[in-house]
Amino acid sequence: MTDETRMKAAMQAYIDHFNRSDAAAIADLYADDATVEDPVGSPLKKGKAEIAAFYKMAVATGARLELAAPVRASHGNAAAMAFNVRLNMPEGRAHIQVIDVMTFNDAGKFTSMKAYWGKSDMVLEK
Amino acid sequence: MTDETRMKAAMQAYIDHFNRSDAAAIADLYADDATVEDPVGSPLKKGKAEIAAFYKMAVATGARLELAAPVRASHGNAAAMAFNVRLNMPEGRAHIQVIDVMTFNDAGKFTSMKAYWGKSDMVLEK
Repeated sequence: MTDETRMKAAMQAYIDHFNRSDAAAIADLYADDATVEDPVGSPLKKGKAEIAAFYKMAVATGARLELAAPVRASHGNAAAMAFNVRLNMPEGRAHIQVIDVMTFNDAGKFTSMKAYWGKSDMVLEK
Repeated sequence: MTDETRMKAAMQAYIDHFNRSDAAAIADLYADDATVEDPVGSPLKKGKAEIAAFYKMAVATGARLELAAPVRASHGNAAAMAFNVRLNMPEGRAHIQVIDVMTFNDAGKFTSMKAYWGKSDMVLEK
C-alpha cells in the first residue's frame, strides 16, 4: 500500500528526521536494498549500510532542510518534493535548491531516492 | 551537451510555451521518440504525435503554469521543477501541485517527462 497520504508522511518524516540530525531514523525510512543517487549523475549508494553512512555524514554538516513547496504524490508508487538545504559554508550562509524523488515498496519504505541539484543550484546568500 | 543552463532554459521554455497555449512549441521541445508519463502511474504517451495531441488538449483547458520554486538541474542529463497548474473547475478556481522531471538527449531535447501529482495535489481555492 502506497497511498498518497502515507507517501507524503514518509517524505515529511525524512525532512523532520534530518532536521533532528537523526541519521538512523532517516536510514530506517529506506528498504534494505534501496538505492540513493544524490546528486543525480553521481554513483549510486546501494543498500542500508551505504545509505546509513551517507546520512551520518550529511547530518554532521549541520545542514537543515526546508520545504520550498508542498510535497507531491503521484498515481503510482512515487512522490517528489522541492526543498532547500540550508548550510554554512566558509564563504557564508548558503542554500542548495533540491528536488528529491522517492519510490516506495508495499511496506511504505523508500526503494530509491534521486536528488536533482546541480552546481547552479548552490546559492550563496550575501 | 546537456549543461545546466541549457536544461534550465528548456524547462522555462516549457512553462512559457504552455502559458502562450502553444502546444506545437511544447512538442518541439521533445525528441521524436520521447515518452510522457503524466501523472506518474498512468499509461505512457510515446512519440511526437501522441505527445503533440496531449499538449493540444492540455493547453485547450486554459490552464496556466506557475513555478513554485526555481528549476533544479543535476549532475547528469536531467532536471526537475515544482510548479502549480492554475485552472478553473466547475467548482471554482483550483490548482494542481506538480513536480516535473525531464531527461535530455545530447541535442538538448526532452527524452522523457514524468509528472508527479496525485489526487491529493488538486486544491480547490475557496
